[in-house]
Amino acid sequence: MNFKIRAAKKDDSKDISRLIMELAVYEKMPDRVMISYKELERDGFSSNPFFQCLVAEVPEENKSKEGHTIVGYALYFYTYSTWKGPSVFLEDLYVMPDFRGQGIGKSLMSKVAQVGKEKQCVRLQLLMRDWNTPSLDFYVAKGAQDLTASEGWHFLRFDGEALDKLANEASID
Amino acid sequence: MNFKIRAAKKDDSKDISRLIMELAVYEKMPDRVMISYKELERDGFSSNPFFQCLVAEVPEENKSKEGHTIVGYALYFYTYSTWKGPSVFLEDLYVMPDFRGQGIGKSLMSKVAQVGKEKQCVRLQLLMRDWNTPSLDFYVAKGAQDLTASEGWHFLRFDGEALDKLANEASID
Repeated sequence: MNFKIRAAKKDDSKDISRLIMELAVYEKMPDRVMISYKELERDGFSSNPFFQCLVAEVPEENKSKEGHTIVGYALYFYTYSTWKGPSVFLEDLYVMPDFRGQGIGKSLMSKVAQVGKEKQCVRLQLLMRDWNTPSLDFYVAKGAQDLTASEGWHFLRFDGEALDKLANEASID
Repeated sequence: MNFKIRAAKKDDSKDISRLIMELAVYEKMPDRVMISYKELERDGFSSNPFFQCLVAEVPEENKSKEGHTIVGYALYFYTYSTWKGPSVFLEDLYVMPDFRGQGIGKSLMSKVAQVGKEKQCVRLQLLMRDWNTPSLDFYVAKGAQDLTASEGWHFLRFDGEALDKLANEASID
C-alpha cells in the first residue's frame, strides 16, 4: 500500500490522541490514559517539546472505514548515557489493525532509528512488558538485546505520594 | 556537613566527567566510558541540551583529599508518557565514598524530584541492574516501585550493527 511517514504537526494531535487510546485498549488499560490532544499540543509542539512524533499517512482513497488517513505513529524522545552519549527512546509504536502487514510499523521504526542516527544517537531503546510477546519477538528479531534478560536491568518508578515525599525532602536550595 | 546542591554549569563538566568515571569504576566497567568532559559540555550545556545535571558542592575547607569540592552529581532528563505526561528520568546519582552518610545523595535525589515536579512531571523513573542491591534497596525504601518485578517490564536496546541495519531500512522519506 501507498503510505508516507512524516514528522507530526500540531494539527495531528487529535489523530495521535485517537491512536494512543487505541493502543491503550490493546494493552487493556484505556482508563489509564490521562492525556488528551490538548496536552499533546502543549507538550509536543511548543518551543521545548517533551517528545517527537512521526505519523504514517495513507492517501484519501485508502482511508480507514471511520475516515482516518493517519493510521500509525511512533512517539520518541532523546535520552542520554554518561558512557555513550545521546540515545533515542521509542515510547510508543502503533499501527491500526487494518493497516498492518504492509511494512508501516517497520518503516516507522526504521525512520526513528534514522532520525536518531542523524542526531548522533548510538542507541535506540525501549521498555515493554513481557506479556507482549508478539512485540518482544518483533524487536528481538530485528536485533534488539533484551537487557533485562541478559544483564538484569530493572525499571523503577516513583509516583503519587512517593514522589511528593521525595520532593518535599529537598530542603536545600 | 555543610554542602550545597546546585544546577551544574558548563565549567563543572570536568568534575562531572571525573565523577562519571568513579561511578563506572564502582560498576566495574571503566573501559566502557566513551564520553569526555568535551562531549558533556556540548551535550549538556548548549541551547538544546540532552540532559540536566545537579552537583553537590562542599566548602573549600571540606574539600576531598585530592582537592575537589564537587563531590556528587545527579544527571537526569525528561521523558514522556502518552498516558500520564512528562516524567523525569534519573540517569546517574553518585556521591564520592568519603562524603557518604551525610544526606548528600538523599538531597540530590530529592532535588531532582522537586525540579521534576516544578516541570509538571508525575513520575521519577530510573533503570538499574539487579546486582546493585544497596541502591535497589535505597530506592525501594524511599517508595519506588520495581516495575520489572511487579509488572514484567523489560528494557530493550538496539546499538551498533542492529541500529545501523534498522536505520538503513528507512527507505521512505
